[in-house]
Amino acid sequence: MTARPANPHQARLLRLLRDGGPNSRAQLGDQVELSRSKLAVEIDRLLETGLVVADGLAASRGGRRSHNIRLAPGLRFLGIDIGATSVDVAVTNAELEILGHLNQPMDVREGPVAVFEQALTMAAKLRATGAAEGFDGAGVGVPGPVRFPEGVPVAPPIMPGWDGFPVREVLSQELGCPVMVDNDVNLMALGERHAGVARSVQDLLCVKIGTGIGCGIVAGGEVYRGATGSAGDIGHIQVEHGSQGRQCACGNRGCLEAYFGGAALARDAEEAAREGRSPELASRLETAGRLTAADVAAAAAAGDTASLGLIRDGGDRIGQVVAGLVSFFNPGLVVIGGGVTGLGHTLLAGIRTQVYRQSLPLATGNLPIVLGELGPVAGVIGAARLISDHLFSPA
Amino acid sequence: MTARPANPHQARLLRLLRDGGPNSRAQLGDQVELSRSKLAVEIDRLLETGLVVADGLAASRGGRRSHNIRLAPGLRFLGIDIGATSVDVAVTNAELEILGHLNQPMDVREGPVAVFEQALTMAAKLRATGAAEGFDGAGVGVPGPVRFPEGVPVAPPIMPGWDGFPVREVLSQELGCPVMVDNDVNLMALGERHAGVARSVQDLLCVKIGTGIGCGIVAGGEVYRGATGSAGDIGHIQVEHGSQGRQCACGNRGCLEAYFGGAALARDAEEAAREGRSPELASRLETAGRLTAADVAAAAAAGDTASLGLIRDGGDRIGQVVAGLVSFFNPGLVVIGGGVTGLGHTLLAGIRTQVYRQSLPLATGNLPIVLGELGPVAGVIGAARLISDHLFSPA
Repeated sequence: MTARPANPHQARLLRLLRDGGPNSRAQLGDQVELSRSKLAVEIDRLLETGLVVADGLAASRGGRRSHNIRLAPGLRFLGIDIGATSVDVAVTNAELEILGHLNQPMDVREGPVAVFEQALTMAAKLRATGAAEGFDGAGVGVPGPVRFPEGVPVAPPIMPGWDGFPVREVLSQELGCPVMVDNDVNLMALGERHAGVARSVQDLLCVKIGTGIGCGIVAGGEVYRGATGSAGDIGHIQVEHGSQGRQCACGNRGCLEAYFGGAALARDAEEAAREGRSPELASRLETAGRLTAADVAAAAAAGDTASLGLIRDGGDRIGQVVAGLVSFFNPGLVVIGGGVTGLGHTLLAGIRTQVYRQSLPLATGNLPIVLGELGPVAGVIGAARLISDHLFSPA
Repeated sequence: MTARPANPHQARLLRLLRDGGPNSRAQLGDQVELSRSKLAVEIDRLLETGLVVADGLAASRGGRRSHNIRLAPGLRFLGIDIGATSVDVAVTNAELEILGHLNQPMDVREGPVAVFEQALTMAAKLRATGAAEGFDGAGVGVPGPVRFPEGVPVAPPIMPGWDGFPVREVLSQELGCPVMVDNDVNLMALGERHAGVARSVQDLLCVKIGTGIGCGIVAGGEVYRGATGSAGDIGHIQVEHGSQGRQCACGNRGCLEAYFGGAALARDAEEAAREGRSPELASRLETAGRLTAADVAAAAAAGDTASLGLIRDGGDRIGQVVAGLVSFFNPGLVVIGGGVTGLGHTLLAGIRTQVYRQSLPLATGNLPIVLGELGPVAGVIGAARLISDHLFSPA
């Protein structure tokens, strides 16, 4: 795909077809407020670009039957969602439906060259299965702050070797298509807003609890990235002040991530196992040699008190922070997602308790706090959405 | 003024004239990207409405000299900024320059009828001094959350009798002009952004420390009000968790406002005076019968250790909260304003210390934390800006 819409009307038509699927000229006309003749001109131009194709006759609304149109069925978007310990790669059509999806373990600390070699191999595998011949655009999420206009990670605390790496430039050369890069948490928010639990919500927070903790912010329907691209970096908000706060990997004391998130939970679980507070965790540690958030979730499900306590304490800690953000931001929805959502309703209950107890009634009155709907594909759907928003904008 | 601009081009021209003052047709044409003939049509229509008038010949740029135009010199906006303990009323011209300004003590708890009777008397006084014959629009700030589209305060914790009072409707009947209502903190942010320290900053936080504590949020150049109009309500973010937290007037424990703000500071100062920790404050208490933030500021300026300690502790507390907000929101600027800015640089130093220590370097690298420039008129300028934004929008 080399064409881009020539004007805002064409861009709007493309987005309507992406979000609503094939549609008749008549119904599109109702939505874009263009005269019949102007609409015909814009659609003819889109047909010429090949972005849009005719799709048979629409159902009759009385009078002459209208033609259906749809986005070109061969359009393919690539979504790459890089986490701290794994990578997701997916191919979608132009309506952002997933046609193929792969997940592999990967350590982001191996650096951008190794990580993208792996991601591109996964993309080639998806291509080989027939999901795509080539890609018309790619969206990429990385687990750290991004200078958004340039598509370059900046000072990412858990990603040695990534600072300043020109992800957008390198990948668009490798793939031969336009690429957009964003923080993984923003992509999760975009994904849940496009196809998940946050559809049509204008102001929302999307808290991602994986190895670390971050927050996607949507304000007035748009992802808010902040003055330097680090908005939502809530993992290092202090929850304990003074010298008794726990040491955090960032060098400070008392940060949220020192108390909760996948890394903190694994460490606390191993400590509980070694100190004899949990036979369940101890036996898992002996078998596997290490523990993860998934072990804590499984042990909790089996009724292990120590594991339930860890999850409850974590929910309290993160709930304290979210309560402050709810007072400040007054969102219409809070979504909890990421790897540790396996901890499920015990975690959610802890967060809800803190928010409903601490924030003012006006901010919490109609505030749902829910788990994300899209699970591990929220990021790749968000990535496809990101690049489609870019491509379906006036050139 | 009954006319409103008929289209976005006219709206943009009116805003350019408001923000830049009188200008030549030629220079306006450079800024709005309209053809010469289309620009002439729009300006002629604005001249017909009376919103804009001719203003002599512009300086030569070579070739035929262009005519200057300006906003009608008789346009008058009224700004009313209601605080917890005083009210500011000002009249501006269409360029939002203050032509007259009054401040009077007032207790917001007397309820909306009494407060607006006083504010309207002050407006009449300004009219009598010749600052205005009538008003073309009015902006109003109240110290609590506002359902913005309707202009109605909702559940304001320090304002008994105000919940649901139709401020916008009542005042536009009384004044015979359009009225817009907003939270006082949002108006301070609008004012500092229009004519103060925050000019041209896209993403900023404006922390107002008066009797209570609130925060105006500007995201992408627009005031962000949240899902139900309570965004920025940071006075009740918990800074001490558990049962040892101080009792707050809202019913919870450990809120920021229980530790700092005008009300907390007055209470702590009186306690220090009575407990013999500050001879300076004790003598002031004996003279006045009560203490305010201004007494603490004066005592601190005179070297009183207890007062300096109170300010430093307050700066620490509010700095902790602001540090978290900076990590979350990644603003390009933080403005500190409101009544207690008399505490000045001691307070600012405390806030800066916490933010620069706790927030990640990426968020604080280029982050100025400064006192507001407009002092007590920030709110009324913001109020005039609010109503002018409304009136200079397409009808």
